[in-house]
This record gives sequence, C-alpha cells and structure tokens, in this order.
Amino acid sequence: MRALLKIAYLGTAYHGWQVQPNGVTVQEKLQDALEAVYKERLGVTGCSRTDAGVHAREFYCHFDTDIAIPENGVVAALNAKLPDDITALECKYVDDDFHARYNSKGKNYVYRILNGLISSPFDFDRVWHISRPLDLEKMNDCLSRIIGTHDFVSFSSSARTVEDTVRTVSECKACRHGDYIEISVTANGFLYNMVRIIVGTAVEASDGRISPSAIDTILSSGDRSLAGITAPPQGLYLNKVFY
Amino acid sequence: MRALLKIAYLGTAYHGWQVQPNGVTVQEKLQDALEAVYKERLGVTGCSRTDAGVHAREFYCHFDTDIAIPENGVVAALNAKLPDDITALECKYVDDDFHARYNSKGKNYVYRILNGLISSPFDFDRVWHISRPLDLEKMNDCLSRIIGTHDFVSFSSSARTVEDTVRTVSECKACRHGDYIEISVTANGFLYNMVRIIVGTAVEASDGRISPSAIDTILSSGDRSLAGITAPPQGLYLNKVFY
Repeated sequence: MRALLKIAYLGTAYHGWQVQPNGVTVQEKLQDALEAVYKERLGVTGCSRTDAGVHAREFYCHFDTDIAIPENGVVAALNAKLPDDITALECKYVDDDFHARYNSKGKNYVYRILNGLISSPFDFDRVWHISRPLDLEKMNDCLSRIIGTHDFVSFSSSARTVEDTVRTVSECKACRHGDYIEISVTANGFLYNMVRIIVGTAVEASDGRISPSAIDTILSSGDRSLAGITAPPQGLYLNKVFY
Repeated sequence: MRALLKIAYLGTAYHGWQVQPNGVTVQEKLQDALEAVYKERLGVTGCSRTDAGVHAREFYCHFDTDIAIPENGVVAALNAKLPDDITALECKYVDDDFHARYNSKGKNYVYRILNGLISSPFDFDRVWHISRPLDLEKMNDCLSRIIGTHDFVSFSSSARTVEDTVRTVSECKACRHGDYIEISVTANGFLYNMVRIIVGTAVEASDGRISPSAIDTILSSGDRSLAGITAPPQGLYLNKVFY
C-alpha cells in the first residue's frame, strides 16, 4: 500500500527536507518516526526539496508499507514520535503509482517580510526583517511581470541544473498586512531558489536598484547576475501543493 | 539619569526574567547588552518576574546611567547586541524616582490555547495545545466571576508569599479565533502563577471538573487545592503594562 502523508514543519532546526550526510533533516526525522511506528526503516519520497531554514505549512510525501493502520491512526502515531517542530497533518492511502513529486500539478509559496523599524523576538526565524520602508507598488509592478510561461534560468541558482527551465507562474503578488508583507507565488513548478530570487529582485526593485520594466530583459537574458539577490531562507514557506 | 526601557521577548530559551544562579535569564542577557553599550555593568530593575518559558510582548525595566545616549540610539545599540529572541522596543528618560515595578498601575496578560485536534509546528513553544473541544461559554462563566476585588491567595502558588494577597481584576475573558482561544486578564497586580491558575481553573470548568458557580467559594476559601491546575508556561504572554 502507498500512503500519502501531509506534514507541516518549522524549518529553523533543519538542513532542509532531503537527507544529507551533514546535518539533521526533516526527511530523516520523519523516517525515524515511521521506523518507530512500523518497526522497519521505510523510504519516504517528498514532493520537493526545501532548503535549510525554509518552512512548510503543507508538504507531501509518500511511503510504501504492508501494514494496514487506519489513516487517522498513522497521523496520531507519527505525532507521538515526531519532534514538536514537525507535525503530521493527514494520511491517505493512494494508488501504487501515485507519486508525491511527479503527480504534483503545482505549488504555492509564501514569502514573509517584516517591514518595520524594529525586529520581532517572535518572528526572527520566520521572516526576513527589512527596516527601510518598502514600496509595495514597485514590488508588484516587478512581480506582475513574472506571471506567465517563461524560461526562469535567470531566476535560479546555478548550484543545480535541470534540463527544462521553463515554468508557468500563475500568481505572483505582494500584499501588506500591517508591518508584514506577504509575497505569494504559484507555479506549475519551481527551479532551485526561484522564489527567493524573485523576492530578492522585488526588494531590489523597491530600492530602485532594478527597474520593474527590466524584468522582461532579465527573463530573456538567461543571466542570473541580472536578477536580484537571493532572499534569506527563513521567510519562505511552502504553503500549498496541488494534485 | 534613569532610563525606562520597553522590551519584548520570546521566553522559550530563558529561565524567566530574574537573574538566577542556574540557567540563562532575560535580565542577564539584557545586562550583558547594556554592558556592551555602556562599558560598565548596570543593574536593571524589571516591572515583574516572569517564569521560565513565559513570553513578553511588552516588558518594562529601568536602569541608571550618566552617559547621555539619545533614546532611539539606546534602542538601536541594544538591538545590535541583544540575542534575536529579545528586542528593545523603546527607551525613555524618566524622573529619578520612577520605578518600573512600583509605578505600574496594572498589567494585562494574554494566555493562548491552541484548541484543535492537531498541534502546530509553528506554535509548540507558544501555546497550550488542548485537543479535546473546550466549552467557551463555561470558561467565560468561570472567568467572569474572577472579576472584582478579591483575596486571590487560592489562585496563587505557595512558592512565594506576599503579605497582601488582595488584587482587583478588571477584565477576565476568553475569545475564540479559529482554533485559538485567547484568555485576557487585566488587574492592578498579580500573585505568583495567578494567571496560569485562573486559566487552569477555566479549562477544568470547561471539562466539568469545576463548577463555574464554585468560583466564589474557591476565592473565599483561600484554599489553593480547590482551584484548578496551573496551566503550562508557554501559553502565557505579558501583554501590556500600565503606568
């Protein structure tokens, strides 16, 4: 049987999702909890990678097992074993060929900026604090030009290369809620660091270092150095995964 | 010159406000930051004690110095030296006889409960998670009877004794916001653990273990064992201090 698991996590303490030789990861902690429940080491396949310090309000992964535990029972048993900063939200048995990553039709990320003079002790590990005033209009002028089907290679870190770098962004906008700015980006897929570079570019547009009208050129250039900085990880949340 | 400092902190990492031999405290971290700014060890007097794991959205303390730094400069310099989970919000020079504790006319505490089946990885150290449904009406029936001038000795931990245990509670109510319940308590002063025992009593009233109509008897009895349990620290926030 294949189980599709929905989890959420605070990424602060983790070196991202994916198991790696140095540093504790969410995948490792989840595999430990599954082992405590199923009494054997199970492989878990995630819907995407996330970087160190990045959070997930919703993250999906699948695993295979022959042991039939009721769906709610899996959630309760895992939450009894998982650390406090990782929570199992839902479990569903799915077809054996369902794949948490390949079946995803798209994702929504939210990036949170605390845009006020003074930082918050409650949010230091969950926002990008920018004390200078940001210009929401300029940011949205920049972000709206991201929408559409483009080759996003200039908005991706060179650390990882994939063959096809064309993605379709269906939503890309910033909203202000008091001192907080939330940037929401929805696409059928994302390249490595794509949201963080989009956010960094919007902030540089607000600062006047990048002209919003330059976005088309940046996109068509395929030149990473023309886009903005990579925003820090702690403001980024994987918010929704669409199947 | 006497400076009155307003700070906020996430209490998770600290053994409360007050310096103590074992465990790191907020007062100690603040004194370290002041020493880095003023180049001498300054004593700091807080508006109250807070317990290990309790948070403050607003906490006042005063210190004396001969070095005249502009008020905004004190805030900026301290924030450059303080850890991320303690933030200086405001500094004001006050009269030499102003006292952060004795001049306080009252305080408002907020206690947050996450009342949903599943915990949240973003809130595990900042709410009391109660998965069984709570009865807001019963809780408020209990809480409304707390309002008024009473001897609160039965709502205080025996760990500390003060001579006068009469306090006036002007506000005491619970509100639901989605899965979250916030209990707000305002009084001219608080005994040790008073808010946490009030919250524990309201939860036991919701569970049917304590009758809301028994509150008057509990108050007049002066018997701590008749009141409810002491709610855990991580849901408690010092929210406002009135001068």
